[in-house]
Amino acid sequence: MEGTILTVNCGSSSLKVALFDAQLQKLASGLAERLGKDDAFATIKGRPDRIELTAGATHESALRALVSALQDCGLLDAPPVAIGHRVVHGGETFRKAALIDEDVLTAIEDCANLAPLHNPVNLAGIRATTNLFPDVPQVAVFDTAFHHTLPQKAYLYAVPQRLYRDWGVRRYGFHGTSHQFMATEAARLLGKTPATTSIISAHLGNGCSITAIRDGNSVDTSMGLTPLEGLVMGTRSGDVDPGLFDFLANKGMNAEEVHRILNNESGLLGLSGQTNDMRALCELADHDHEPSRTAIDVFCFRLARYIGAMMASLNQLDALVFTGGIGENSSLVRKKTLAHLGLFGFTMDEELNAHHGSISDGQIEGADSRFRVLVIPTNEELVIAREALASATPGSAG
Amino acid sequence: MEGTILTVNCGSSSLKVALFDAQLQKLASGLAERLGKDDAFATIKGRPDRIELTAGATHESALRALVSALQDCGLLDAPPVAIGHRVVHGGETFRKAALIDEDVLTAIEDCANLAPLHNPVNLAGIRATTNLFPDVPQVAVFDTAFHHTLPQKAYLYAVPQRLYRDWGVRRYGFHGTSHQFMATEAARLLGKTPATTSIISAHLGNGCSITAIRDGNSVDTSMGLTPLEGLVMGTRSGDVDPGLFDFLANKGMNAEEVHRILNNESGLLGLSGQTNDMRALCELADHDHEPSRTAIDVFCFRLARYIGAMMASLNQLDALVFTGGIGENSSLVRKKTLAHLGLFGFTMDEELNAHHGSISDGQIEGADSRFRVLVIPTNEELVIAREALASATPGSAG
Repeated sequence: MEGTILTVNCGSSSLKVALFDAQLQKLASGLAERLGKDDAFATIKGRPDRIELTAGATHESALRALVSALQDCGLLDAPPVAIGHRVVHGGETFRKAALIDEDVLTAIEDCANLAPLHNPVNLAGIRATTNLFPDVPQVAVFDTAFHHTLPQKAYLYAVPQRLYRDWGVRRYGFHGTSHQFMATEAARLLGKTPATTSIISAHLGNGCSITAIRDGNSVDTSMGLTPLEGLVMGTRSGDVDPGLFDFLANKGMNAEEVHRILNNESGLLGLSGQTNDMRALCELADHDHEPSRTAIDVFCFRLARYIGAMMASLNQLDALVFTGGIGENSSLVRKKTLAHLGLFGFTMDEELNAHHGSISDGQIEGADSRFRVLVIPTNEELVIAREALASATPGSAG
Repeated sequence: MEGTILTVNCGSSSLKVALFDAQLQKLASGLAERLGKDDAFATIKGRPDRIELTAGATHESALRALVSALQDCGLLDAPPVAIGHRVVHGGETFRKAALIDEDVLTAIEDCANLAPLHNPVNLAGIRATTNLFPDVPQVAVFDTAFHHTLPQKAYLYAVPQRLYRDWGVRRYGFHGTSHQFMATEAARLLGKTPATTSIISAHLGNGCSITAIRDGNSVDTSMGLTPLEGLVMGTRSGDVDPGLFDFLANKGMNAEEVHRILNNESGLLGLSGQTNDMRALCELADHDHEPSRTAIDVFCFRLARYIGAMMASLNQLDALVFTGGIGENSSLVRKKTLAHLGLFGFTMDEELNAHHGSISDGQIEGADSRFRVLVIPTNEELVIAREALASATPGSAG
């Protein structure tokens, strides 16, 4: 078939779009930042000129500007055949991508209580493209959907079950499109089918999560009710003692302050006192900045701990996969993490790791490693485009 | 040497004492319950008659009654040579047991902010025995002390480090006397020395924690700042998403309510909706009570996850050890937990497990297991008595 697919990913103050052709080759991408601020702006990748947005620009105005810029490039002469939207929280309602209609919109709104910072801006993006392209099928692709196969023992918290029944308190998991992509890509690299491939997928970006994938299905994951649980992240704490809340309440802190600290001032930033950027931390550590070394140490140790934890959900492990900005680019993080895993039988090849697997089809494990270890660049936009195309034009799905 | 050693373990509304001879053989033990309530009472183990306490009895009056009962039995004709007290939180101050003087008392009081429910009653017990036996050396044995060897990467949370510097927010770990006892006993059973023995020790009682012990030293553990973190427990949740607090605050719950729910209404009780007693749950599960089955499943899965996590801290694993009321007595829990660990190379012997290791020097692993698996009855009182004797009479220490 002909035509293009547009993907839209709305963050709280940012918006990313990408345009794919019908063969899912990326044609262009664009980014709007500082939305709602005085100095909001947008850029099309590969173009030097910055698109100035009006002060306090909304997601809708940014989207109009980006679409108009793509049209100026001659890339959107006709409306796209499908538009795919990243939606963070699909609750228990959405087990796969959904063609958007009024019922779907209402259901996404209903899930907003589980992701109050995310779902409303995702909805704003959907409304904006619906206004721009009223006749184009819009598809919601959920961060949580890939984890709908989590078994009960992995998704229930040990809390009074009325909290689950009445308010949906359970583990949902996030980064689903990325973990799903890892499952497919790892199978391809290993010469297997996804349905017979079991991996541990470590998505390490500004947010970090890890997933145990058994025969293609998510069976355990580190993020939970919200994207705060689990691994150490850029500014998010990941796991803490649940007793911390009472402890800090006794020190006079309210829930809002604690929430802000754990989401915005913790993680690598909180440990290092300097930055949430792993590249910068590695440079600081090279210059003997002790808190930065400590931040990297804690990050890698906690990741290794979770790799061990994920193995409890698998019968076989075809590969441990690293992805995301840190997972793809930090040889030090992979090296320090694997150094904790000797008892499991993991070994690493220094040179392959130094090249991020780029000279070895992703491989970075040593010849004597009990398990394969792969570095695979993630491509969430591609998954969203693929799902959008499949859902919008069911006959054409591969 | 001659003489007896008394151990004292004060809980919020209970008090346990035990009396040992100089060879550390237990002579007697007693228990006071429902302290502060109208129907407080005490018992000496093996004696049918219940000691009625006055309504609202304090720890001090209960202790007087129990000591008096032991004297009536002819077991405490002379004052003990040492009294050992379990103290829950020693913070970063206490790295081993401490002979109690004014400075030590002040330091224990200073740690009370880390364990507001526990340290004050521990201090009440110390004051009571000091009044009764003013000339006898009193020794504080800390739940946290064995974990003083945790490396920084394991004890730091990924939160702003001012919370650690100013308020001591870090992982401390608990159940130290039990985990320490496992390290010694496992080494003995394996014909090794503790200093060259590495184990994972799972203490599963009403409280549950797991510790990685490397060459005799605690290097990782599941409980943290408080005894709420980690494994699913009788009424405690163990790990939850830190985002739960903001979620529940948005539902109108305050910190106190959340604290109560996570400490008193969660864990096995919260999951099953029935009981925090594992024996009762197993019976309910046998009668097809689904929520009880689920509670057992979640308990075992979370435990298996943590066993994997602990392996990231070890270079070798001489044995996985089960202890505590559940660990020693529930063949189902051990079986279901080990069933998750096939990828690690653990196997189990059905018959040895059914006998709780009692016919096999603790062994329950199968002949083809990559790692040893042992069931070892814990004896925290013995560790406290041993430490009390060693600290009170340094020349006699073994």
